[in-house]
This record gives sequence, structure tokens and C-alpha cells, in this order.
Amino acid sequence: MSILVVGSVAFDNVTTPFGEVREALGGSATHFSVAASFWTPVRLVAVVGEDFTEAHRQPLIDRKVDLGGLITAKGRTFRWSGSYGDDLNCARTLETQLNVFAEFKPIVPPAWRETPLLFLANIDPELQWDVLEQMRGAKLVAADTMNYWIEGKPEALKRLLGRIDVLLINDGEIRQLTGERNLVRAVGIVRDMGPHVVVVKRGEHGVLVFEDESAFALPAFPLDTVMDPTGAGDAFAGGFLGYLASQGLDGERDYRRAAVAGSVMASYQVEDFSLERLKRLTTSEIHDRYARFQELTRFKALS
Amino acid sequence: MSILVVGSVAFDNVTTPFGEVREALGGSATHFSVAASFWTPVRLVAVVGEDFTEAHRQPLIDRKVDLGGLITAKGRTFRWSGSYGDDLNCARTLETQLNVFAEFKPIVPPAWRETPLLFLANIDPELQWDVLEQMRGAKLVAADTMNYWIEGKPEALKRLLGRIDVLLINDGEIRQLTGERNLVRAVGIVRDMGPHVVVVKRGEHGVLVFEDESAFALPAFPLDTVMDPTGAGDAFAGGFLGYLASQGLDGERDYRRAAVAGSVMASYQVEDFSLERLKRLTTSEIHDRYARFQELTRFKALS
Repeated sequence: MSILVVGSVAFDNVTTPFGEVREALGGSATHFSVAASFWTPVRLVAVVGEDFTEAHRQPLIDRKVDLGGLITAKGRTFRWSGSYGDDLNCARTLETQLNVFAEFKPIVPPAWRETPLLFLANIDPELQWDVLEQMRGAKLVAADTMNYWIEGKPEALKRLLGRIDVLLINDGEIRQLTGERNLVRAVGIVRDMGPHVVVVKRGEHGVLVFEDESAFALPAFPLDTVMDPTGAGDAFAGGFLGYLASQGLDGERDYRRAAVAGSVMASYQVEDFSLERLKRLTTSEIHDRYARFQELTRFKALS
Repeated sequence: MSILVVGSVAFDNVTTPFGEVREALGGSATHFSVAASFWTPVRLVAVVGEDFTEAHRQPLIDRKVDLGGLITAKGRTFRWSGSYGDDLNCARTLETQLNVFAEFKPIVPPAWRETPLLFLANIDPELQWDVLEQMRGAKLVAADTMNYWIEGKPEALKRLLGRIDVLLINDGEIRQLTGERNLVRAVGIVRDMGPHVVVVKRGEHGVLVFEDESAFALPAFPLDTVMDPTGAGDAFAGGFLGYLASQGLDGERDYRRAAVAGSVMASYQVEDFSLERLKRLTTSEIHDRYARFQELTRFKALS
């Protein structure tokens, strides 16, 4: 089953304690698409500038991501510059150049409007809403957001949440959105706004999935090398929703397995800069790390 | 199998966003003993002042903690005052009065020197060493510490680590002790100092257990009410080591089940101030939450 993503395609400048990259391919839709492509066919809706070359498209084409919704607009591609200190959980944004994103009005190609699974990656909630309006055939809608929109467009974001099935959000962001420090209560508040599944991403501390009365907690994979956390959340979303799409949406949805799949993708994503690790990732490595997550978390009943 | 603990018995003044207590029974050895007592017989070595009454002893006596090593010295009992803000992971110490602890020289009663399991709760590493010297019969030695000793007595602490089997330590403290931000590498450095099992406590983010080549990660139990985190680490240690003692030390030691047992005790500890929640805790509640930890963390293999 296909999945449609709308989000950003960007050139990133990233500095971490372990190195740096300049003008590296990034953006929420890019990281999501590449991660999800290991699980299911992906359709990408985004905008790039005239400086986005065939070579830049190649990593997406290699992963068979359908670029039928990737528009080239007059101007330069969206750019983000950020740095991480010793605390890799926390990015410092040095510069954001919206460029072609400033005027972006996402258009979903007519043939794609019945795509059953829709991911609204982290962009302006008004654009997320526009896409949702075009996607009346979607059976499952998931969205991400960030502090920038929580502060800047809270009303648009809340309107959007009323029509979302699954919200993926950081722990800091859900606290900001709800004004509630306790995560269990914050999730309760968000679920009253609309989403029946809330996935709280906690970086190196793993992920929590709240669904109806059930809570699932998964630690992050303990890594001795984290080169660059950029894109980890999007890679998580790619594995999470890619897994769900691969299973179809008609039966019971296994959000737990999906969260492990997402955590596997995120754990690889951070092992190198930009798309480097996922470019060379294999299906066998994915299965291997999934099994290592089982080994990491298993324990016996109390005898 | 019995367990012997040496540590502090204190009167605490604690303020959290949810209330406050004054002159409440606390201290590392107190919280440890009460938690461990649900699993195994406990022997307590500590010092109190003349202001420590029969009523203060009662909660320990109720839990059948053996107070044969609790000395009453001239002066006042150790006192700690602290407060927590919205981030309950982080205590701010307002005042520490060592009082009778300033001159404390722990003496292990001769009949107790063959106790097989020894827990050196968080006190001066030189006192921890003195107790270890008296406990040549111990088969398993575990220790806790804190930033105060890592800064103030790093050499004494490192000497002690050379003779410790199991170290329980916070994530911030192990980073401070090793100068290494990455937890996997920090644990490697600590294991080279002596302990073959390292338990990294991460507060609301759960716990990591490193043992030989095996890593175990357990999230904390998601609670919608955390009244007071004081004593959570000691209650964890009590459940962790209490479980191990209850199983004997001759067979294979199940450090994973022990970590779940510890997390169960810590999750109850924080639900109320001082010893209030553990005073009314039942064995059936312990088994219930252990089962809920299984429900919280289970997921299926990738099909």
C-alpha cells in the first residue's frame, strides 16, 4: 500500500561534535521518504529550487521514491543550518532560508488523491491542512509538528489536530502544546483534541505510544556512535508509517511493531550524516536490529 | 537470603510542586531497606541521633528490617532539605546537616559479617570502603554514589569501584565520573574500573543494565501522578537487590527481572511523599505492576 508524504526537501548545513556537512540533502520529507521506502512505495509532494540537480534527486530515485509531486519553482531550494553540542538531543538552528518554500502551495497530483496513508511532515500547519483537504480518500492521516508552529500558529495547528489520526511529537513539544509537564496527562489533553494515537518521541530515551487504553514504551537503541541526530524523527516516522502501510490498513494495526520499525530506522539514521547511513542500509540490517531490540527489552515473568 | 545495607537514615524537608513534608523519615538506607524488605530480610547499618524516637523506628520495624546495626549517637539525626521544580528529575539541595553523620564510623555487628549480599548506599566512599573491609564474606557487593562524592572524593571512589560487583549510578553521574557523554562508552570506562554490572538510572526515562556483552533497557512506568521523586533511586536499588537476594546467588543471576522489580518499587515510591506509599504497598500490587511492565514493553517479532 502506498504512502504519500508532504514536507520539506532541503539543503542542510550541520555541525556536530563529530564533524560537519555543507549543502547536504535533507528536509523532513526527504528523510521520511528514504526511511519509509524500505517498507512501502512512497509518493513525495514537495518543492525545490532551480539549484536542485539530477544528482540531488538520485538518492530518492535509488530508493524508488515517486517524485511525481516534486515541483521545481523559480529560486533557491529551502536551506537549514544547525549545530549540536555535547547534548545531541538539542539542535541549535543557526539559519533558516525559506526560499522556494515561502510561496509553496502544495498540489497533490490527481492520481494520488486516493492514497490511503498520508503523512503530513513538519511544515506550516496551514499547508498541512491544504493537503489534507485534497486527500479526502486517505484512510489514515498522521502528522508531525515542531515548536516553531506551536508558538507561531497554535490555532491552525489545533484545527489540524481535529482531523488527524496519529500525531508524532517530541516530549518537549507536547509539553509546550498542552502546558502540561506530566507526559501521561499531556497525551490525554492532545487526544481530546483529535488524534486517537499519540507517539511521543524522546530522542535517546526512546518512544512512547498511546493508543486507546494501551501504552507502549520502547527505549532507544544504545549506540556507541551517534554522528548526527538530524532527521532521526523523520526516519522514525518513515519506519513507523512505512511498516503500517506494508501491512495494509484493514486489519488490526500493530502500532507497537510500527514503533520498533521506526526506532530501527532512527537508530541507523543517526549513525552518519545526512542520508549516508540509509543509502547503504540493507533489509537484512533492518531485520537484525529489530531482533536486537527484542533482545534489548525482553525479560521474564516474575516466578 | 539476607542483605546488609549501610547508608543514611535522615529527616527530610522536601518541597515539590505537589506539596511538602517536614522532618519526614528519609535517607538512602531507609528507602532502600523498606523497598528491599518486600523481597528479602534486611539488615541495616546506620547512625541516628538522640532525636530519633521509637515512633521513627516503627515504619522500619513494621517492615521487619533488622535494626541491630542502627546506632544512636550523641547529637541530632542527619537532615536534608531539598526542593523540586517542574522538572522532577532534578533535586535542588537547600541544606544538608551532617549532624551525627559527621563522626560516623560504621561497625558491622560480628554476626552479620558473613551476610552474602552487601549494598553500600550513597555515603562517603571512605565509609563504604570501611564497611567492605569488614564484610569479607560478602558474595555480591553493590554500591551507589552521587555527584558530591564524584567531585569531592574521586580517588576514594575509584579505589572502591575496583572491589564492586554492581554499580548503580545516574546517567548524569556516570557522565561526570567518566567525562564521556555517550552512555555506552561511559559504561565501558566504568566497567574497566571494576564493576562487571553497571545499572544506569535515568529517572523518568527508565534504566539501562549492562552485563558482560548484554544490554537491557527498561522504560520507567508512565505515571500520571508523581508526587515526590525523593528515594526513587534507593527504592529501585531495594527492589533490584532484594529480588536478587530472594533468588539466592548460586544460580544464574537474573539482572533483568531484578531491574523490573527495582522499577516497580521506584514507580510506587514516587507516588507519595517519604515512605507513605510503600507503607501501604501490598505484594499483590507489586505483582500487578510487574505484569503491567510486561504489558507496557511487549511487542511481536517482525513477521
